[in-house]
Amino acid sequence: MNTIKTIGVFTSGGDSPGMNAAIRSIVRTALYYNLNVVGITRGYEGMIAGEFIPMSRKSVANIIQRGGTILKTARSEAFKTEEGRRTAYEQIKKQNIDALVAIGGEGTFTGANAFIREFNIPVVGLPGTIDNDLIGTDFTIGYDTAINTVIDAVDKIRDTAESHDRLFIVEVMGRDSGLIALRSGIGVGAEAILIPESKTNIDELFKRLEEGRKDKSSKIIIVAEGDEIGGLEIAQMIKERFPKYDTRLSILGHIQRGGKPSCMDRVLASRLGIAAVEALLNGRKGIMVGLVNNNVHYTPFYNAIKHLSEADPNLLKIVNILSL
Amino acid sequence: MNTIKTIGVFTSGGDSPGMNAAIRSIVRTALYYNLNVVGITRGYEGMIAGEFIPMSRKSVANIIQRGGTILKTARSEAFKTEEGRRTAYEQIKKQNIDALVAIGGEGTFTGANAFIREFNIPVVGLPGTIDNDLIGTDFTIGYDTAINTVIDAVDKIRDTAESHDRLFIVEVMGRDSGLIALRSGIGVGAEAILIPESKTNIDELFKRLEEGRKDKSSKIIIVAEGDEIGGLEIAQMIKERFPKYDTRLSILGHIQRGGKPSCMDRVLASRLGIAAVEALLNGRKGIMVGLVNNNVHYTPFYNAIKHLSEADPNLLKIVNILSL
Amino acid sequence: MNTIKTIGVFTSGGDSPGMNAAIRSIVRTALYYNLNVVGITRGYEGMIAGEFIPMSRKSVANIIQRGGTILKTARSEAFKTEEGRRTAYEQIKKQNIDALVAIGGEGTFTGANAFIREFNIPVVGLPGTIDNDLIGTDFTIGYDTAINTVIDAVDKIRDTAESHDRLFIVEVMGRDSGLIALRSGIGVGAEAILIPESKTNIDELFKRLEEGRKDKSSKIIIVAEGDEIGGLEIAQMIKERFPKYDTRLSILGHIQRGGKPSCMDRVLASRLGIAAVEALLNGRKGIMVGLVNNNVHYTPFYNAIKHLSEADPNLLKIVNILSL
Amino acid sequence: MNTIKTIGVFTSGGDSPGMNAAIRSIVRTALYYNLNVVGITRGYEGMIAGEFIPMSRKSVANIIQRGGTILKTARSEAFKTEEGRRTAYEQIKKQNIDALVAIGGEGTFTGANAFIREFNIPVVGLPGTIDNDLIGTDFTIGYDTAINTVIDAVDKIRDTAESHDRLFIVEVMGRDSGLIALRSGIGVGAEAILIPESKTNIDELFKRLEEGRKDKSSKIIIVAEGDEIGGLEIAQMIKERFPKYDTRLSILGHIQRGGKPSCMDRVLASRLGIAAVEALLNGRKGIMVGLVNNNVHYTPFYNAIKHLSEADPNLLKIVNILSL
Repeated sequence: MNTIKTIGVFTSGGDSPGMNAAIRSIVRTALYYNLNVVGITRGYEGMIAGEFIPMSRKSVANIIQRGGTILKTARSEAFKTEEGRRTAYEQIKKQNIDALVAIGGEGTFTGANAFIREFNIPVVGLPGTIDNDLIGTDFTIGYDTAINTVIDAVDKIRDTAESHDRLFIVEVMGRDSGLIALRSGIGVGAEAILIPESKTNIDELFKRLEEGRKDKSSKIIIVAEGDEIGGLEIAQMIKERFPKYDTRLSILGHIQRGGKPSCMDRVLASRLGIAAVEALLNGRKGIMVGLVNNNVHYTPFYNAIKHLSEADPNLLKIVNILSL
Repeated sequence: MNTIKTIGVFTSGGDSPGMNAAIRSIVRTALYYNLNVVGITRGYEGMIAGEFIPMSRKSVANIIQRGGTILKTARSEAFKTEEGRRTAYEQIKKQNIDALVAIGGEGTFTGANAFIREFNIPVVGLPGTIDNDLIGTDFTIGYDTAINTVIDAVDKIRDTAESHDRLFIVEVMGRDSGLIALRSGIGVGAEAILIPESKTNIDELFKRLEEGRKDKSSKIIIVAEGDEIGGLEIAQMIKERFPKYDTRLSILGHIQRGGKPSCMDRVLASRLGIAAVEALLNGRKGIMVGLVNNNVHYTPFYNAIKHLSEADPNLLKIVNILSL
Repeated sequence: MNTIKTIGVFTSGGDSPGMNAAIRSIVRTALYYNLNVVGITRGYEGMIAGEFIPMSRKSVANIIQRGGTILKTARSEAFKTEEGRRTAYEQIKKQNIDALVAIGGEGTFTGANAFIREFNIPVVGLPGTIDNDLIGTDFTIGYDTAINTVIDAVDKIRDTAESHDRLFIVEVMGRDSGLIALRSGIGVGAEAILIPESKTNIDELFKRLEEGRKDKSSKIIIVAEGDEIGGLEIAQMIKERFPKYDTRLSILGHIQRGGKPSCMDRVLASRLGIAAVEALLNGRKGIMVGLVNNNVHYTPFYNAIKHLSEADPNLLKIVNILSL
Repeated sequence: MNTIKTIGVFTSGGDSPGMNAAIRSIVRTALYYNLNVVGITRGYEGMIAGEFIPMSRKSVANIIQRGGTILKTARSEAFKTEEGRRTAYEQIKKQNIDALVAIGGEGTFTGANAFIREFNIPVVGLPGTIDNDLIGTDFTIGYDTAINTVIDAVDKIRDTAESHDRLFIVEVMGRDSGLIALRSGIGVGAEAILIPESKTNIDELFKRLEEGRKDKSSKIIIVAEGDEIGGLEIAQMIKERFPKYDTRLSILGHIQRGGKPSCMDRVLASRLGIAAVEALLNGRKGIMVGLVNNNVHYTPFYNAIKHLSEADPNLLKIVNILSL
């Protein structure tokens, strides 16, 4: 028997574009099913501190197109302790919150998992992270926007690269995953893409640069933040090995998290928001809702860990064939 | 035994963003496999007129980010006649072209099918159209960019709608398909989405507008070009039924075809370009290469016809729940 | 002696990008000078209806980048009557509003002028309109954003025009003024620009199209909304005269009013907002503040009427020389 | 008597958006006046190396919207020597080039000045640099685009800043000039703007941060590259002084030079290109053409040096009033 009357919704971890579209979807779906909805600000930190705001249809009007998260987000050390989680539980009980929807990444779900185990409160998760590094969904909310932000930036850098015959090393986000690097690298026609999933063979890179098309003067190399050598050192090595190249390093940084979400991210967030609330109403908990092959897919939190798998060989092949 | 030495590549039908990324991929893949590549301008028209240009790696440098098609495109009446196709065949034989890659939509593939039947020349197709209305691929090249262009435009229109408490009818492309309307409508948080796949119930629309959130003053209704009533008449009917609303019509028009391709469209075009050349080398012909559930998929040309199916009920449901 | 303690601020007429930046500047400047600030929604309509909201620093946080106007805007028939203005005056007196800042265009200032005359209340105006058609300022708030929106749209249309060898007639906003058409037309490299300020010589246009570069297949003609012939008819005439051209019409419409304001519009709005409040504090009224040659300039409302002057010959010359 | 028959055009120094629009304007204006035009690639380097390409109307078709420079650009050590300049002179004589148009910044004009003195060849310059740091023009070609690129990037960063309650130090370009920092800082509503033109008072900055609006959690500080303390160290100092703030540094880097030029940059480049060619035809040389108060203005090269003046007090005042 389903007895959920009030759900709480929050965002946690790094922000990603589309989180607001997800909040809107969760709030409106809950209202559609005659539930009350409470927003919790600053993730687990706000839950512990008792930062609650009632949500209406109007609270989420005109936010679908905004980057960031109106509920704010944070990383919480306190929630990693049992005491912190107990305080959080007491706070949500005071609000009569029966179930939670958590938007975030691996850390968010790890926290949720402990919370469910200890207090038996239903929690369902949505994958909100630009890194696309979660099992159980083809794409995370924010990834599509992030790779479009990267290609816009690199298209600009390429103007300068072409005008000056320069070689640019561009470092993009992805501490543990090369997925942003991989798709954006293909999208900009990069000469090489260096990612943590595959060991960077510097000799092969040098060979590639040496044998590359002779009449091609400007070059772009995309390096994921988490590559074991890293953008700064790669730039240094290339400068030493090819002193004739005008080699520059550009670290894209925080612009990659922001901006208006792309259409696909808005649609994904909207669809998963509905699925999350319906999953709670159907008695599910401890799962992340994702989209696999265009179908809603449920992944237990203990499985929703980061990919540390090989990168998609189909994508790697594209670079090898097209970049010369 | 494979005897392909020279392939021809062309774009045909309406242009779509990502066609250049596809051309780049086809040319470089062919060169990678030591084939010669000839570009044919203006589709079947140029083939009949003998407009050929040799393609090198450099011919396709720095085009991955450009909208439109460097090979130009056209619709050809002449190619619909046997005589036209015979002239075209003689022209490509003079160039020693052994096989063709055609980037376009349904009309392109129908022409290719007749061409194969009559002259036994291998042709493989890539889905290049913003409408996403082809069986055999989850997405067509250009669709993702087009829906992003639509939401950018409607986000701008919403600024005015909100400032003036207006109701906007926005007509988007899609003569036979509501897929642009459907995803972009969800992406902008439209009140209603009218598409050719489902009969427009005007009474229900009126009821929806009447019962909608009272404190919501501005409203957006997305109408696909091919809707059986159409944007102009819908606007007229709403004006008559709700004279107190400040109702406006905006037809987005040709901006939807252009612009820099999105990252996903560039990656899709790159991947399918490789698959098309490899399909030819493997002896395939008369097929369109697409991507279904992230795997390359081959669809015979006679099947690669427009969807006239029901719209995805999962997407329609989103509008009903979220738009109030 | 200056006795202003509370000022009211409102937006009126068509919305334009940068109005929010202007509101932010007016509110913060007033608070900086220890005044109270009251926001009036929906322009003169809201003033008559008594729609007032107190404004704090926080009310205008995070709005500098938003299109439209958070205070909403309207056109008011009631304010054109003496009775309407009397009601408005009584409403603002109840709020203890001593002075007003009005953001809008010619109609806004005409209303303000009557209001000052009848009730002796100080009003200072800011030029908020995309049309740039006001005397007393080099640029109006919103114009720079609007011309950038136009060139973005036409750059997209050009992709299609180039791919299909088409001639596009693009109609842009400007009912009485060709200034949007003129600068955006130069910006996109248009073949011809038709504006209300100069009589459209259709024979000259035909001659120009006929004698134009023969190897130039795609053409863009920009027509201002207020041109005496108009986009629709021009397109018709060209189709008849040059049946071989693939001629299309695109009316850009409402997207031109929206979107994030450009940097220059934000800076202009910020600067004029300060100047408006300081002008009130210095005892001025019945004037519009503008920027002429980078200096603040005051123009009496009765002079701040639309330009109906000749277009800048320097700009017209650019088109003649560069467009062939 | 004017005997110019052939002019050469080149870009030099750092690239800036709008250089292509300037090249297009110069080429077409020269052809309009029946001159021959030769493009010189890679600035003075290419002149010395003899890299010349004949320019036609078609050479500059469809480039007005592109970032970078189709003629490429470089900095030349060789041209700083008399020998280098002699070789350059011999090369251009072989091409029958009678006069030059140089697009670039201070270094470009210094080189041109020596060249004129030694070889008496007419050279006219256009201000092409994003820094806006030249006397003799209100705006340089590329500045308007660059500040729009900065605000787009910071608008994205602000999404994250707001979501996480972070303080961001954003370093923007401007080695000797704070003009990019100043206008973009106003445009994003920065809390503080640090520029080389005014000594950075760190105590005042601390005080400002301390006394700032208490309910304002996210803050943006814009630092020009050439500020005497610099972004990295400022970030360090704030972290130490305000350990409770979540302080981050973002260096925008090379994206600031690229991208499609804004409408104003395209119009400015178009107008100055015409003025430059006409100046040569009128017998002028050794001058940079600029636009001051919307009129063409000629500045001798020896005067067209970087501003090292005080920053505009009107702009500085805006920050002080509005940012709290």
